[in-house]
Amino acid sequence: MNESIPLTVPETANWLINRDAFLIITHRRPDGDAIGSASALAQGLREFGKVAFVLSNPDTTPRYERFIEDYLAPEGFIPSFVISVDTASCDLFPSNGKEYVDSVSLCIDHHPSNTNYAQRLCLDGSCASCGEIIYDILFLINGEVTPITAQSLYVALSTDTGCFSYANTTANTLRVAGLLVEAGAPLAELNRSLFRTKTRGRIKIEGMIFSGLSFHFDGAVAISTITLAMKEEANATEDDIDDIASIPGSVKGVLVGITIRELSSPKDCKVSVRTSPKINASDICARFGGGGHSMAAGFSLEASVSDIRDSLLGALADFL
Amino acid sequence: MNESIPLTVPETANWLINRDAFLIITHRRPDGDAIGSASALAQGLREFGKVAFVLSNPDTTPRYERFIEDYLAPEGFIPSFVISVDTASCDLFPSNGKEYVDSVSLCIDHHPSNTNYAQRLCLDGSCASCGEIIYDILFLINGEVTPITAQSLYVALSTDTGCFSYANTTANTLRVAGLLVEAGAPLAELNRSLFRTKTRGRIKIEGMIFSGLSFHFDGAVAISTITLAMKEEANATEDDIDDIASIPGSVKGVLVGITIRELSSPKDCKVSVRTSPKINASDICARFGGGGHSMAAGFSLEASVSDIRDSLLGALADFL
Repeated sequence: MNESIPLTVPETANWLINRDAFLIITHRRPDGDAIGSASALAQGLREFGKVAFVLSNPDTTPRYERFIEDYLAPEGFIPSFVISVDTASCDLFPSNGKEYVDSVSLCIDHHPSNTNYAQRLCLDGSCASCGEIIYDILFLINGEVTPITAQSLYVALSTDTGCFSYANTTANTLRVAGLLVEAGAPLAELNRSLFRTKTRGRIKIEGMIFSGLSFHFDGAVAISTITLAMKEEANATEDDIDDIASIPGSVKGVLVGITIRELSSPKDCKVSVRTSPKINASDICARFGGGGHSMAAGFSLEASVSDIRDSLLGALADFL
Repeated sequence: MNESIPLTVPETANWLINRDAFLIITHRRPDGDAIGSASALAQGLREFGKVAFVLSNPDTTPRYERFIEDYLAPEGFIPSFVISVDTASCDLFPSNGKEYVDSVSLCIDHHPSNTNYAQRLCLDGSCASCGEIIYDILFLINGEVTPITAQSLYVALSTDTGCFSYANTTANTLRVAGLLVEAGAPLAELNRSLFRTKTRGRIKIEGMIFSGLSFHFDGAVAISTITLAMKEEANATEDDIDDIASIPGSVKGVLVGITIRELSSPKDCKVSVRTSPKINASDICARFGGGGHSMAAGFSLEASVSDIRDSLLGALADFL
């Protein structure tokens, strides 16, 4: 496979200034950084007088639709240049983007694992969000950031860092976020809708999980179980269950947080293991045929929740 | 009552540079901004070669003790100058600070309601946290901020803004937070301990509250009840119940969030009402002899949880 030509931020700005008619693609199941980066780039390029659209993404969640709807490419739009944002590999393109995988002129990304699929690549792996790179590019192009662009970029930065609470947040993330608020991003309204509001389904299922947490090994291990019956009782969607594996590990004193979740049936379970730095989650999961990272790993097993819990508790004695 | 002499940030820095032997006082039940501002000011002044101590605060929670312990005034310390931080009124001094109420030489604060009790006042009501003002003062004095000072100031800024998620967060808060991380504040570790970790008592009581939320008026009203029995079952402390009144109002679609809490007995209840902008919480509470602000009000009643819930649901029909 060829390497992409690496571009700096100024080179990227210059490349964009000298071209027109862009189609912007981001990854499937787009998160806030994907949506915010794509919409901000389209808006910023339009402000400079360019034609720029974003490829529709069939599985955009309602939560993010309002940020992208004004930029979606009309049917029949033939771009001169295809740009991807926040997308480490063209395998992650949505189904309607497959036709462009070999013709991506420029990729703007913050994933160190980027596979160099585009002709040019503007990559900064030290950024918590792709939105930070887009900010720098657009500031060079337009000399300012408008309130509407600032809003999209704020969505990108804030969602990729859990409202600046995750460990990936850097001084630069906070610096750029400050500039975006100064430029008119409506922080209070965005934070309320993105971070400070829970659906009824989410709050019900969290209540069940919190109440049902079991503690073992003097509180060093917390186990959460999510059954199909709980999901139904809470009337919870898949969206409501997003990021739920982080709950047991968030309890004070817990070194190993485990989430056992029934998938299609009570005998088909997915297990997520989160650990503090001194305990290797991947080693624990390897015992059960799974794997992952040192602090976040998982496995699947055709067994009941209670059988899996018993097996795990047996195995964990070797790791604590 | 006399007015304080207003001081700008440069004037305050200059005043501090020309004096020595400071005792720093903050309000009782100190929150993160109080603790962070006081410890940062003591540390920053020491870095410039001054003698500076913080008055011990009997009701400092374990959560914040480690940030203040190196600065506590030894017994018998006689200050030349008393400084208060983050304290709008000397009525808020802890009991061991009452002897200083008439001799506060300088107050540094961000509360617009400051009562001008000090001889000099450096006030910026536009700041989300007092820590932001302390940052500017210390930067002028020392020309830099050390990692240990940056840590204290980060505690101040982040706790007063709910890790930058509350509506009071400004562009300046984010800008200064970025500078503090650049200066060495350990963001990941601080965020984990301050915001991303819950005690077992907290998670248990939240679970009960989430599971027990009742919805009325097509989901426009959510009611949470906290009984003494729940608190005992969850083994929850007062600290664990902090800020719990915001839960019902955080559910999507809820316009009025109500928390009914048993205090000393099942017939002694405190009710908190949180509303969205179009509904006046104070008016609702006035019906029950209470009051407060337009979006956050409350009342106390000698009645059972269920009787209060019934009365409230009857009254709410007039407000929706």
